[in-house]
Amino acid sequence: MNSFHSTSPCSLWVHPDDNTIIQILDQRFLPFTLITEDLKTDDDCLVAIRDMHVRGAPLIGVTAAFGIYLGLLHCGKGRYDTCCDAVVTKLAETRPTAVNLFYALEFVRDAVLKEQREEAKPEAAFRAACTLMEREIAACRRIGEYGLSLVEEAARKKKGDPVRILTHCNAGWLACIRYGTATAPIYLAHEKGISVHVWVDETRPLNQGSRLTAWELEQAGVPHTVITDNAGGYLMQKGMVDMVIVGSDRVCLNGDIANKTGTYLKALAASDNHIPFYVAFPSSTIDTKLESGEAIPIEERSSDEVHFMTGFGNNGLQKIRITPFHSEANNPAFDITPARLITGFITERGVCQPNRKDILQLFPEIA
Amino acid sequence: MNSFHSTSPCSLWVHPDDNTIIQILDQRFLPFTLITEDLKTDDDCLVAIRDMHVRGAPLIGVTAAFGIYLGLLHCGKGRYDTCCDAVVTKLAETRPTAVNLFYALEFVRDAVLKEQREEAKPEAAFRAACTLMEREIAACRRIGEYGLSLVEEAARKKKGDPVRILTHCNAGWLACIRYGTATAPIYLAHEKGISVHVWVDETRPLNQGSRLTAWELEQAGVPHTVITDNAGGYLMQKGMVDMVIVGSDRVCLNGDIANKTGTYLKALAASDNHIPFYVAFPSSTIDTKLESGEAIPIEERSSDEVHFMTGFGNNGLQKIRITPFHSEANNPAFDITPARLITGFITERGVCQPNRKDILQLFPEIA
Repeated sequence: MNSFHSTSPCSLWVHPDDNTIIQILDQRFLPFTLITEDLKTDDDCLVAIRDMHVRGAPLIGVTAAFGIYLGLLHCGKGRYDTCCDAVVTKLAETRPTAVNLFYALEFVRDAVLKEQREEAKPEAAFRAACTLMEREIAACRRIGEYGLSLVEEAARKKKGDPVRILTHCNAGWLACIRYGTATAPIYLAHEKGISVHVWVDETRPLNQGSRLTAWELEQAGVPHTVITDNAGGYLMQKGMVDMVIVGSDRVCLNGDIANKTGTYLKALAASDNHIPFYVAFPSSTIDTKLESGEAIPIEERSSDEVHFMTGFGNNGLQKIRITPFHSEANNPAFDITPARLITGFITERGVCQPNRKDILQLFPEIA
Repeated sequence: MNSFHSTSPCSLWVHPDDNTIIQILDQRFLPFTLITEDLKTDDDCLVAIRDMHVRGAPLIGVTAAFGIYLGLLHCGKGRYDTCCDAVVTKLAETRPTAVNLFYALEFVRDAVLKEQREEAKPEAAFRAACTLMEREIAACRRIGEYGLSLVEEAARKKKGDPVRILTHCNAGWLACIRYGTATAPIYLAHEKGISVHVWVDETRPLNQGSRLTAWELEQAGVPHTVITDNAGGYLMQKGMVDMVIVGSDRVCLNGDIANKTGTYLKALAASDNHIPFYVAFPSSTIDTKLESGEAIPIEERSSDEVHFMTGFGNNGLQKIRITPFHSEANNPAFDITPARLITGFITERGVCQPNRKDILQLFPEIA
């Protein structure tokens, strides 16, 4: 079984001694406090997703998948299908932008409905959630391998100098069970002895970059430097960035993507400075229904995420207010990066151009 | 005499009862604590500038100007010119990017050298510093009036809906003695009953937007909303920004400008979404010596500004760490916005295009 302490760290696993419990790292207090949380019910999963104990498109999906399973465990026999629908409806309302959530719910729901033996339905949900998890892990591994070739190509041009990669938010193993999407090529390059240096965008307001990506890289011994979200443009102007790799929460077939707010600004700067800008994601992130990025629903999160900041103070973890007491704040969690600003997609089936034809060539089954 | 509590608030003034003391608002603890600090020596001014008790290009300049005066007050008669040179050298090393600093030091130094009567030299420094301060205040007022016409033009198109103006960092009266540069048109529009709404970029790492601009606007009753530095691109994509106005720390004759890091990213987004992007500054911010923005020296500030955050917690003002203990951070304080991304300059002599010909038409004396 997976666990955080296995060779390659992971962000969610089935309890090694009790498969009615799913364990996650509660990511809210990282990098200062490492808390393992037990998820025992669908409502535990709902809270974990909504309040961002877990986050990152693939991990949201897998957590929701196990949420159906846990929901069925606590629901009376003979009511599994109804119960499954109710859990799906409830979990679908937690976060609107990452399409992996809906993909995962659909995937497990299909398995439950297809299972004809009533008593086997919870087990079917469990198996589907495990399958999804294993697929996401395998996809991330392959994203890493395909992305590695891009890093190697950049490394050849740098002739021994580090390849300087900028990333936004956290698209690491914390977001994706294992390996990560944007970070997977970085970890593989580092393992292979290729010199890399990562510019980590802080990623306000929840600081997934400085709290999570920086912590991941530190654990893995990958050289990195935290920067404010404002600084990336300057570094690109000064020729200090060789490539950008980010993750995504939803990819449209026209090549537009949604990702953590601020990604669009980095894509503009990369384009303006002729720096390759890659988006790494598993196929569970592709939305075949939307025509373009404009139609992606963008989550508005609580203004308190802008007003308050949590960090490590004299008395351990502390929360402080950082805006005037009477000022309002606005907090869109994602933005849209149009295909025209993207150099390429890194997927589990290879690297492709951000357009319908190339995406469908890699994934003909989704057409 | 000016003072913070006069009708229009200001950020620096001569002590009303003792003109050997310059008073400033120590801006480090705003918006939570309003501290008035007495500057009695040139070293007090040096610390205030270097450690950002005061900041903002025009205010840095005026503080340095009074720094020469305070330096002469405490220097032996007969040594005024030598002393003046020493103070100028020392203050010139505090912050490299805002050209107003060098302009102000030169301006006061000229006045000291020109004054033939040895005993009158401190008084000459005082008069020059006061002149500079009054000029900056008058320039800001006129910037406000010229900028107002742009806001009025936008308001006519909005037909009663608020004109939504995005600004980055603080280019308000806190940065400029009074009125501000980027904020001056906003204050005048608000006074005139024109409906405006300001998107305030938080402006990491020192949060001059959420700490200072939001506080200024709150004091003046101007509707505003704090956003993270990441969010502005999204708001522009969604048609929620009508214009951008920012200040500047150095303007080159080719129209390139330096301003707080992150300005470039907003200029890219404004350009990509066909939103007017204005830069407001007094002529003391123009650098006639540099050919283009690439040559502007960009200050690298302490990484601790990225690692730590100060705000209001259970025990009053508190400082917390927000990055992993072993991660490094990088902190460029400014970036360059090229002329091609700028719609216009708002100066004390009018609005012009960001190019040599148009700048020199307004300011022929600097040619």
